[in-house]
Amino acid sequence: MLYVFLLALLFSSSSPSHGAVQDFCVADFTAPEGPAGYSCKMPAKVTVDDFVYSLGMPGNTSNIIKAAVTPAFATQFPGVNGLGISMARLDLAVDGVIPFHTHPGASEVLVVVQGTICAGFVSSSANTVYLKTLKKGDIMVFPQGLLHFQVNGGGNTAIAFVSFSSPIPGLQITDFALFANDLPSELVEKTTFLDDAQVKKLKGVLGGTG
Amino acid sequence: MLYVFLLALLFSSSSPSHGAVQDFCVADFTAPEGPAGYSCKMPAKVTVDDFVYSLGMPGNTSNIIKAAVTPAFATQFPGVNGLGISMARLDLAVDGVIPFHTHPGASEVLVVVQGTICAGFVSSSANTVYLKTLKKGDIMVFPQGLLHFQVNGGGNTAIAFVSFSSPIPGLQITDFALFANDLPSELVEKTTFLDDAQVKKLKGVLGGTG
Amino acid sequence: MLYVFLLALLFSSSSPSHGAVQDFCVADFTAPEGPAGYSCKMPAKVTVDDFVYSLGMPGNTSNIIKAAVTPAFATQFPGVNGLGISMARLDLAVDGVIPFHTHPGASEVLVVVQGTICAGFVSSSANTVYLKTLKKGDIMVFPQGLLHFQVNGGGNTAIAFVSFSSPIPGLQITDFALFANDLPSELVEKTTFLDDAQVKKLKGVLGGTG
Amino acid sequence: MLYVFLLALLFSSSSPSHGAVQDFCVADFTAPEGPAGYSCKMPAKVTVDDFVYSLGMPGNTSNIIKAAVTPAFATQFPGVNGLGISMARLDLAVDGVIPFHTHPGASEVLVVVQGTICAGFVSSSANTVYLKTLKKGDIMVFPQGLLHFQVNGGGNTAIAFVSFSSPIPGLQITDFALFANDLPSELVEKTTFLDDAQVKKLKGVLGGTG
Amino acid sequence: MLYVFLLALLFSSSSPSHGAVQDFCVADFTAPEGPAGYSCKMPAKVTVDDFVYSLGMPGNTSNIIKAAVTPAFATQFPGVNGLGISMARLDLAVDGVIPFHTHPGASEVLVVVQGTICAGFVSSSANTVYLKTLKKGDIMVFPQGLLHFQVNGGGNTAIAFVSFSSPIPGLQITDFALFANDLPSELVEKTTFLDDAQVKKLKGVLGGTG
Amino acid sequence: MLYVFLLALLFSSSSPSHGAVQDFCVADFTAPEGPAGYSCKMPAKVTVDDFVYSLGMPGNTSNIIKAAVTPAFATQFPGVNGLGISMARLDLAVDGVIPFHTHPGASEVLVVVQGTICAGFVSSSANTVYLKTLKKGDIMVFPQGLLHFQVNGGGNTAIAFVSFSSPIPGLQITDFALFANDLPSELVEKTTFLDDAQVKKLKGVLGGTG
Repeated sequence: MLYVFLLALLFSSSSPSHGAVQDFCVADFTAPEGPAGYSCKMPAKVTVDDFVYSLGMPGNTSNIIKAAVTPAFATQFPGVNGLGISMARLDLAVDGVIPFHTHPGASEVLVVVQGTICAGFVSSSANTVYLKTLKKGDIMVFPQGLLHFQVNGGGNTAIAFVSFSSPIPGLQITDFALFANDLPSELVEKTTFLDDAQVKKLKGVLGGTG
Repeated sequence: MLYVFLLALLFSSSSPSHGAVQDFCVADFTAPEGPAGYSCKMPAKVTVDDFVYSLGMPGNTSNIIKAAVTPAFATQFPGVNGLGISMARLDLAVDGVIPFHTHPGASEVLVVVQGTICAGFVSSSANTVYLKTLKKGDIMVFPQGLLHFQVNGGGNTAIAFVSFSSPIPGLQITDFALFANDLPSELVEKTTFLDDAQVKKLKGVLGGTG
Repeated sequence: MLYVFLLALLFSSSSPSHGAVQDFCVADFTAPEGPAGYSCKMPAKVTVDDFVYSLGMPGNTSNIIKAAVTPAFATQFPGVNGLGISMARLDLAVDGVIPFHTHPGASEVLVVVQGTICAGFVSSSANTVYLKTLKKGDIMVFPQGLLHFQVNGGGNTAIAFVSFSSPIPGLQITDFALFANDLPSELVEKTTFLDDAQVKKLKGVLGGTG
Repeated sequence: MLYVFLLALLFSSSSPSHGAVQDFCVADFTAPEGPAGYSCKMPAKVTVDDFVYSLGMPGNTSNIIKAAVTPAFATQFPGVNGLGISMARLDLAVDGVIPFHTHPGASEVLVVVQGTICAGFVSSSANTVYLKTLKKGDIMVFPQGLLHFQVNGGGNTAIAFVSFSSPIPGLQITDFALFANDLPSELVEKTTFLDDAQVKKLKGVLGGTG
Repeated sequence: MLYVFLLALLFSSSSPSHGAVQDFCVADFTAPEGPAGYSCKMPAKVTVDDFVYSLGMPGNTSNIIKAAVTPAFATQFPGVNGLGISMARLDLAVDGVIPFHTHPGASEVLVVVQGTICAGFVSSSANTVYLKTLKKGDIMVFPQGLLHFQVNGGGNTAIAFVSFSSPIPGLQITDFALFANDLPSELVEKTTFLDDAQVKKLKGVLGGTG
Repeated sequence: MLYVFLLALLFSSSSPSHGAVQDFCVADFTAPEGPAGYSCKMPAKVTVDDFVYSLGMPGNTSNIIKAAVTPAFATQFPGVNGLGISMARLDLAVDGVIPFHTHPGASEVLVVVQGTICAGFVSSSANTVYLKTLKKGDIMVFPQGLLHFQVNGGGNTAIAFVSFSSPIPGLQITDFALFANDLPSELVEKTTFLDDAQVKKLKGVLGGTG
C-alpha cells in the first residue's frame, strides 16, 4: 500500500521514459563522444559489471623498461565515465621504470601495495624536485599536469595502484612525444637542445622517423 | 540600413548553419545523453514553451505520507538542461512528511509559500542536526548531498517550492534505497544495524523482496 | 559501546581540530573573499540560523517602477556561500516592472506565487524574444547572462521567487549601467545609438553625470 | 625493440578502437551538440587544420558603426571545442565603435595590435565605469557577463584580438537585443524607460517590428 | 650562460615574490578556508612530505563493526588540497562491515588489495541494487552521492584502498546521521517509518538522545 | 527621484558593507591564496589600472634561445584573477625558439602579429604531431597539458600573443624540469633514456647539479 503510494509520489508528474534521474552515465561507445565524456548507455542496459573492472592481473614487464601500465580509464572501464575519477595499475619488475610523463588533464594519487617505489615530480615554478622512496602503504600525490616518474626502488617486484581526478586523464610519456613520431630531428634538436646523435638514436629505438 | 550593416557585422565570417551561439541547450530527448546532460534541440525548433513549466497543480497527497513531490528537472522541464538549476514543488497535507533523503548532485533552497514546515538536515562531520520551523516566506538551504527531511509543522496544508543547483539533482529517499528492492534482508541488517523484524516489515510495506 | 567504537572508527587517524569534513562553508564576512566565494565560518560557530533567511516581507514598491527586488545572495544569506545557489523575492505592484537586466554569472528560475507576470528574455544568436505571461504556479527559466525582464501582467500585486545557479549571481540593470554613473554622454550615445536628449534625460533621472 | 615493448606497455589492457585518450574534442558539426559543446570528430579524421584558423583578413568596416567583429568561436573554429577558450578579431575604422554588449558565458581579454582603442566596462555592484584608452600592446580584461564597449580612440584604423574564457562565449549587443526583433515597443519602453520616439526610431533603423 | 639567459626569459616581466605559478596549493591549516578548500602554504615552506602520507598501518578493527576507515583527505593529507582527489584505507576483519553511507561531494573507486569484499550501491532512479563480490585486484566505482556499503565477503581480513574525486569528499554514515544526535525520536520515526522501539534502541547504542 | 527609488530597490534588504556583488576578484597579494586563486582586493580599492596591463615592450631576446616570454598571468596582472583567462607575449628573434613545454592547467591560443612562426604540439594518444607554419593573423590552439613548441619560421623577428584558459596556466619547460635542478643524473637517465654525457652536458648548461 505505502509502496504504491510512495512510488506514485515519485511519478506525480508525467514521467517520460527517457533516462529519469541521471545517477551515473555509463559509457556507450557506439554513440557520439563530447567534451564531457562518452554518451550514456540506457539505464535499462546497465549492469553491475559496468561498475566493476579487474586490475588483478600483473601487466607484462618482460620489456626493456621492465614495467607495465594497465589503465582503467573510461575507455576501458565505462562505469567511471562522467564521474571525475579513474584508476590504473603499475607493475615494476626489478629495475623497472615508468619514464617521465604527464597526465594533461588530471592529478594522481599512488598507493604502493608491494615492494618499494622511488617517485618524483618537478614543479614548474622553480623546477624543484619532490622525490621520495615509498614503501608498502605509502601514498603520494602528483599535482595536475606536472612531469613525474616512478622507478622500482628495491630488489623485488613493486606494484602500485594509481587514481586520477578524471575519467580520461591522458598519459603523455615525454620520450614518446619527442621521438616516436615523424617530427623532423632538426626540429626536435632545436626545441630540446639535445644533440643530433642523441635524437637520432632515440628516434631509432622508439620507431620515430625524420 | 544600419540594420543590414550590423547584421553583416555578426556574419562577417562564413556562418555555418549549425547552432551558432549556444545561449541555451534545450533537452532533445531523442538524441544521446552525456555526462553534462541531454543533447540540445536545434535552436530553430525551440519555443518559449520549452522555457516554461507549470507547478501550479497540487500534487496528490492522498497517500500514507500525505505528501507529494512534483519535479521540474531537465527530464520534465527541458529548458533547464545544462543551465545548472531546476525546481520542484512540495505539497504536504496535515501530518504530511517528505522522508529523509538526499540529492546526490545538488544543493537545495526551499521557500515556504503556504503553511508551516519543519525542516532539518544533518551534517556529516559531527552528525549535528540543523532543525527549523519555517513559516510562509522563510527560506532554508540544504547543502549538497546531506540527509534532510521536511514535515508539515502546522494544522493546514503546506506548500513549498524547492530549487536545486543542478538540472538533474537526483532524489534518493533512504527508505526506498534500503527497502524497496531485492537487497537481501541479511545484508540490509548487517549494513544498517536494524533488526530483522523491522527490515522485513518495511520491505513488506515498500514492496521489497529478499 | 558500539557508539564508542564507531566514533573511534571515524577518528582512527590523527584528527586535527581544523574544519574536519567540509559539508558547507557558511560565509565569514570578516575574513578574505576569494574567486570561489567568502571564507568559511568555523563549524563550531555555525547555527541553523545561518541556513535560514526570511523573504516573507514584501519589498517596498512605492517607487516609480512600482517594484522591488529583495536578494538572498551569499552577501545577505551566508549559508548559501559556496553551494551554487541563491534566491531573491520580486514584488510587483500594479504596473510594476523589473527593467531589462542580466545576471552576469547565473541562470535563473522564477516561480509566480501571486498574481500574473509577463516575462521575457532575448537570445543573443538571433535576438529572438521568448515572451510569456505566467500565472500562479508557472515557472520560467532565464539562461545565464541573457537580457530579461519581468512586468506585472495583471490588475493585482504580483509576487515571485527567483532562484539562481550561483550564490553570487550579480544583477546588472541595463539602465543603471548606462545612465547612473559618470560615463560621458557622448560615449553613451556613441555606444548605444541613443539620441543626446534621451541620454541626458535618463542621466538626469538616474543621477548620472557627464 | 624498445619501441615494440613500450608500445606494448600502452596497450597492455585490451584496447578498444573507440577514441582512446581524449586529448582534444574537435567539433563534429554533424553529430548532436550538448551542454558542454559539440560532439567530437573521430581522432583519425582530425588534422592540424582543425587547430588552425585565420584572423588575418580585416573585417568589412564599410558600415555605419565602421567596425567589424570576426569570431573564431567553436562554431567557426572546431579545434577550440571543449577547451575553454576562443578568439575574435576586432577592426575599427576611424570613428568605429563596437556598441555596448555582453558575453553571457565568458570573460574577455583584449590586446591592441594597431592604433588606439578606448574601452570600458561597467560593474554591476555600483555601476562604476572602468574606462581606459589603450595603445598598441596594451591589454585589458572584461569580467564575465558585464556590459562593455570598444571605440576607436585615434585617427587611424585600430585592430585588436580578443580572447574568451569559453569556446562559445556568446555575444549579446544590447541594441540588437532591445530593438532588432518583434518585442512590442510598449514593452521595450516599459522595461528600459526609453521614450516612444527613441524606441521606434531605433526599431526602424535596426529592422525591428512591433 | 644559457642557464642565465633562460632563467632571465622566465623573469622578463617584473616578477613579484608572491606565489609565482600555482602548481599546487598545499593546505595551510592556520589560514582561512574557502569553498574551494584550504588556503595555500607558501611554496617555500612546502616539502616533499606534504605530498606523501602513510596508509600503511591497519586501522583498529577491535570494535563491533570489526572495521576501520583511515582517511587521507585534505584535512589529514595537505598535499591533495585543491587537486580534486583524495584517498582512504578500509580494514575489514572477518565479518567486518562499513555500514551504508554516502560521500556528499564525491565519486569513489575501490581496489581490493587483500581478501574478499562484497560491495553494493543503490541507484536513486529505480532503487536498483548494484552488488558484487570483489576479490583481490578488482575495482568498483560508486557514483557520487549514492548510498553504498562494503562488507567482508570472506574468511580472512580484507583490505581496500578507496579514492575520491574530491579532496574533501565527506562521509555521512546513515545510522550516525539518524541516531547519533539529539534529533527527537518522534521526528526520526516520522521521517524514516522506523518503529519507536527500533529508533530508541539504536539511539541508545549510538549515543543519541531525544 | 527615480534614481533614489531605484537605488532603494537594490538595497531593499539590509545591505552589509562587505563586498556586495562579486563582479570580479582583483588579486590581493597580501592576503591568503587558495585553490581558486588569490584573495580579492576590496572593491573600493580597485581601479581601472587593475584591469589593464602592457605587453607593448618587446622581451629581451639577446640570449641563446633568441626568444622571450612575457607573462600577464594573475601574478603579474591582478585583474584576471578568478576570471578563467590570462595572456603572454612571445618575442622570437631570427632563429628564436620557445622550447618544448606544457601548461599544466590550461589550453592556449596563439595569434601571430608579426613574422612567421612554426608551431607544433604532440597528442598523447598516438604521439601524432600537429605542425603548422603560421603567418601574420593566423591563430592556433594547443590543447590543455600537451607538449608544444614555437620557433621562428622566417627571416625576421616574430611576435605573437598567446591566451590561456586559466589565470594561472603554469609553464613547465621540459628541459628545465629535467636538467635545471638537483635530480641525480642517474635518475634522469633512467627515466628519459638519455645518455649520461647528454644529461651531464645539459645539466652543465642549465645549471643543474647531481
